[in-house]
Amino acid sequence: MSAARAASSFDKLLLKKIHRSIGQAPIRLVFSGENSSAADGAGMQTIVIHDRRTLARMALDPEIGFGDAYMRGQIEVKGDLVHALEAVLPAMHRLKKRSWYYRLISKWLQRVQGNTLNGSASNIHHHYDLNTEFYKLWLDPRLVYTCAYFPTASATLEEAQLAKMDLVCRKLRLQPGENIVEAGCGWGALALHMAKNYGVTVKAFNISSEQIQYARAQARKEGLDGRVEFIKDDYRNISGRFDAFVSVGMLEHVGREHYSEFGKVIRGAIGDSGRGLIHFIGRNRPQDFSAWMRKRIFPGAYIPALREALELFEPYEYTVLDVENLRLHYAKTLEEWLTRYERSADRVAEMYGAEFVRAWRLYLAGSITSFRTGQLQLFQIVFAGSACRQIPWTRAYLYSGEARMEKESEWIRAAS
Amino acid sequence: MSAARAASSFDKLLLKKIHRSIGQAPIRLVFSGENSSAADGAGMQTIVIHDRRTLARMALDPEIGFGDAYMRGQIEVKGDLVHALEAVLPAMHRLKKRSWYYRLISKWLQRVQGNTLNGSASNIHHHYDLNTEFYKLWLDPRLVYTCAYFPTASATLEEAQLAKMDLVCRKLRLQPGENIVEAGCGWGALALHMAKNYGVTVKAFNISSEQIQYARAQARKEGLDGRVEFIKDDYRNISGRFDAFVSVGMLEHVGREHYSEFGKVIRGAIGDSGRGLIHFIGRNRPQDFSAWMRKRIFPGAYIPALREALELFEPYEYTVLDVENLRLHYAKTLEEWLTRYERSADRVAEMYGAEFVRAWRLYLAGSITSFRTGQLQLFQIVFAGSACRQIPWTRAYLYSGEARMEKESEWIRAAS
Repeated sequence: MSAARAASSFDKLLLKKIHRSIGQAPIRLVFSGENSSAADGAGMQTIVIHDRRTLARMALDPEIGFGDAYMRGQIEVKGDLVHALEAVLPAMHRLKKRSWYYRLISKWLQRVQGNTLNGSASNIHHHYDLNTEFYKLWLDPRLVYTCAYFPTASATLEEAQLAKMDLVCRKLRLQPGENIVEAGCGWGALALHMAKNYGVTVKAFNISSEQIQYARAQARKEGLDGRVEFIKDDYRNISGRFDAFVSVGMLEHVGREHYSEFGKVIRGAIGDSGRGLIHFIGRNRPQDFSAWMRKRIFPGAYIPALREALELFEPYEYTVLDVENLRLHYAKTLEEWLTRYERSADRVAEMYGAEFVRAWRLYLAGSITSFRTGQLQLFQIVFAGSACRQIPWTRAYLYSGEARMEKESEWIRAAS
Repeated sequence: MSAARAASSFDKLLLKKIHRSIGQAPIRLVFSGENSSAADGAGMQTIVIHDRRTLARMALDPEIGFGDAYMRGQIEVKGDLVHALEAVLPAMHRLKKRSWYYRLISKWLQRVQGNTLNGSASNIHHHYDLNTEFYKLWLDPRLVYTCAYFPTASATLEEAQLAKMDLVCRKLRLQPGENIVEAGCGWGALALHMAKNYGVTVKAFNISSEQIQYARAQARKEGLDGRVEFIKDDYRNISGRFDAFVSVGMLEHVGREHYSEFGKVIRGAIGDSGRGLIHFIGRNRPQDFSAWMRKRIFPGAYIPALREALELFEPYEYTVLDVENLRLHYAKTLEEWLTRYERSADRVAEMYGAEFVRAWRLYLAGSITSFRTGQLQLFQIVFAGSACRQIPWTRAYLYSGEARMEKESEWIRAAS
């Protein structure tokens, strides 16, 4: 028996401290020294800490400590990871104050991951320039990497991503011949869907080279390269006038301190006569985004409260027409992603190694938890300028069932 | 010819000043001295000022000056009043700065019309304790004095008020046996509708004696007094626990400085497990409510930007599930009211005199204009606590057409 691994009263103290700092969450914390020591939560799930260094790091800050230890395989979660996180995250969320260490790291990340033009390029590169082959392993065939919309609980992920893109188009009331600008277009699925099914022309911006290359190839393949232009540039460099503005899953990467710039860009693009839609992960109240997630997964990200997002529109007196919260749909989307991801875990390990596999597993599982328990929300906001003539009388047209469902099945058949 | 009525160069100067201070709106301003003088806007509508004192007052501030002069019959609008206001109000809205006189009056009103318990009682008494017979002249038969919901453009006001109440009930997903609290219940139509058609019990609060008396009588008449309790008290005195909170058209009377109190009341009423709906007149950005309207029609009123209203929910981490903007429906509702009001103008004059008739005409016409041109919005926000289990999967159930329409015609038939 090595002295370093025996559970001392000091170890027990640390376990208790950790348990306090995760809000006394209903989970069992175990230090696996030979005389193993547990800090009890009554819960079914167990987190096993194997070494004293990890124990110390988790005592310093449970979130960053746990995240990095999980990534490195220095910690073991017995039972389902999502269930374990469901026990811990809401309890931690209720805590008023984070550790001094967390606050220090959080501030430091904020400083080094700022979303200047160069900063954004590097932040986006970190996540979205991973090989497209990697994302193909677990996204839908069109590579839509944002919350899907499941019209019914039995819809497949592919159907739900199509339904989401179409919901966005219908909310925008796209008319044939209109010019649309998209900020942050991923692999181009929405831009192509709009051009193909609604007869509009689209300029779509993105600063991920990998994604833009894929999107351009896709446009050529579908014969849409005359009507969809994919531009590798920052949203701040959007120029020209458009009938509508759309941005799905980009606001999270804009950064709190750049909202007024983003608002200005929208105004420049659609003036007083246009309308637009932003789709983004949001919160119930302002709060920093998880430091571990910023450190390992999404550098520079900030998740705004709905109220903060509205600051984009106020200076230009844009009218908010509709806000819909789809958080349960994001939980389900992420469940689908995690299932596919696990199926391909060996392939991911070959590509990026075991640490990467675990880090991304934790990101996906943690996101499921956050959407399920309401720490994260998914908002779609439809807005319009004061001179916009595209204001619907009611929202009933969004739900004129059968006709729409048929159209979607048609697209799915056509595409497969 | 009297010296006082000849249009001097000073008169012309004042007319020009007035025209500047209404943002060079496309309307003709005429001073009706014998040598009449005009400040041209190119528009079709003409405002005729009959005397020099009114001219001076309008030069001091066009809004308060015009409002009071119109009320007193010292001014004439040639052509349609709503069209004239449509020319003026958006132009004035674009002005960055109001006159020193306006700002002074605005501040003074804010001070004397504060919404303390006594202040609210007096503010509400001013408007809502007018004889119910007066409101019967121009509201729908159920006396619903808030924005209606017209499922189709051909719906009658009565149908549209029923549809609105039902939209509120469906958004709240009321279940038989639940306890609902309503803050600001008017003449009780919504409370009675909920109890009658959704099998819930309701506690409904209002500080207008006139309205509460009417509502109680109505509950007895409909045999609902066992399930709907009308309480003459301030929303701040709501106590007890409820499944859902609803408030239609009261936030406007709460006053900006009392939002945190209002939020606390909501939290006390439904905790973390409940849900609620607030329906209120809003704006695209924060701005004081018209001083003339506060002086003559709605003392103590404040119309919040959507962002300000969200401050109610943030401290308690309530989730915003749905925001719908119904401003075009309020324009149509007000058009219906104004038409009926004009038909009863003689009767209103007998009750309250000619000044009152004109003041309320201006209030109704100005409101039509503000909703048409987007200076006012109408928001319905659905929100829920973190432990609420009533979160719909999609909003499609709100629009399951035929079935609902039939139900509504049934209610109309049953009631008539």
